Amino acid sequence: MNPSNWRVYLVTQASLSGDRSTLEIVDAAIDGGIDAVQLREKETSARSRYELGLELRERTAAAGVDLIVNDRIDLARAIDADGVHVGQSDLPVSVVRDLLGPDAIVGCSASTVADAREAEAHGADYLGVGAVYGTSSKDVDEPKDGIGPARVAEIADAVSVPVHGIGGITADTAAPVVTAGAAGVAVISAITAAPDPRTATESLAAAVETPKEVGRGGRRE
Amino acid sequence: MNPSNWRVYLVTQASLSGDRSTLEIVDAAIDGGIDAVQLREKETSARSRYELGLELRERTAAAGVDLIVNDRIDLARAIDADGVHVGQSDLPVSVVRDLLGPDAIVGCSASTVADAREAEAHGADYLGVGAVYGTSSKDVDEPKDGIGPARVAEIADAVSVPVHGIGGITADTAAPVVTAGAAGVAVISAITAAPDPRTATESLAAAVETPKEVGRGGRRE
Repeated sequence: MNPSNWRVYLVTQASLSGDRSTLEIVDAAIDGGIDAVQLREKETSARSRYELGLELRERTAAAGVDLIVNDRIDLARAIDADGVHVGQSDLPVSVVRDLLGPDAIVGCSASTVADAREAEAHGADYLGVGAVYGTSSKDVDEPKDGIGPARVAEIADAVSVPVHGIGGITADTAAPVVTAGAAGVAVISAITAAPDPRTATESLAAAVETPKEVGRGGRRE
Repeated sequence: MNPSNWRVYLVTQASLSGDRSTLEIVDAAIDGGIDAVQLREKETSARSRYELGLELRERTAAAGVDLIVNDRIDLARAIDADGVHVGQSDLPVSVVRDLLGPDAIVGCSASTVADAREAEAHGADYLGVGAVYGTSSKDVDEPKDGIGPARVAEIADAVSVPVHGIGGITADTAAPVVTAGAAGVAVISAITAAPDPRTATESLAAAVETPKEVGRGGRRE
């Protein structure tokens, strides 16, 4: 799938899933309609991520859901993932592109227009833009306060690759992100920490789709 | 270089280098006669390790010293390192071999005969065996007490790939490790935390070479 067509993108984080396993969360999110999943789990060993990744690959392939690996190109290749997502402190996008080749999906985090333009110039296929509303589930080096939908709009206007908002987004706050020009939303907590991850995913998908329907032929043209 | 010919193998760890940079430590160790260096630095970001790795590649290539990357195959490829070293919680040796191809050096940590045989069977070119004397510089999942030279001898006898002792080894304690059958010693603190890393390296090299000279045509035949 092309990242332009992702509406809801789940980023895994076992520490937020309560007594459910990451596989349970992903299964429910697939049932609920996610388009992509990112294997993150930074707190676990490479071996654990590899073993989890092999299982995620089976499930996502069967469901037609894209599988992206956070940070590690080697792990992505080892589990035959569709691509890699890197942050500003990971390997540079140009290096990731060289290692993965032209067909893989390469995503990059960006919170400014400058970072976004640089990532696009070096070969990123999509941008994870945020933290839109601030977030409690990412690392401490993330900004505490969100960049807001206005910055998402600036970035979406500045690049031609699709932009996915991330950071504190829920079904209640997804619409302004899409209206601002994001192709979709990436979430951790809104699905992983939800009492019912499947219905939480359905709500997010509906929240993203509505402004897209309304906006068709309208806004941003 | 073949890992059979490594005598002194430096594993980097910035947190033990005091006010010296890792590059300063490596430069001094190269002057003192190391045969290989492993870029470890687990506490730093992939981007930092990449940037440091590019500099280490220049220096080691100029000196004819092998450069190995801990854990990450992608980083090793990005900086054109000679190989990768993995522990029991990193990607499996067979996966590392598949990703790196037949010419790269693949090393694996082992503390038991079973782990050593398995790593060799899956394609490891050398084994880092320990912790020989226990160590304060590795992760908390390392055994607190060392396996001792006797276990090094068991493992060296059980496999045909070269074995390098690691863990708490100093110039004063290196000889029994080599007499036990190790091709050489891998160290962090003995060089990195030394007041003079160059002379510390020279002392280690001498301590490893002496039992080899004495033993030639003698022990273990």
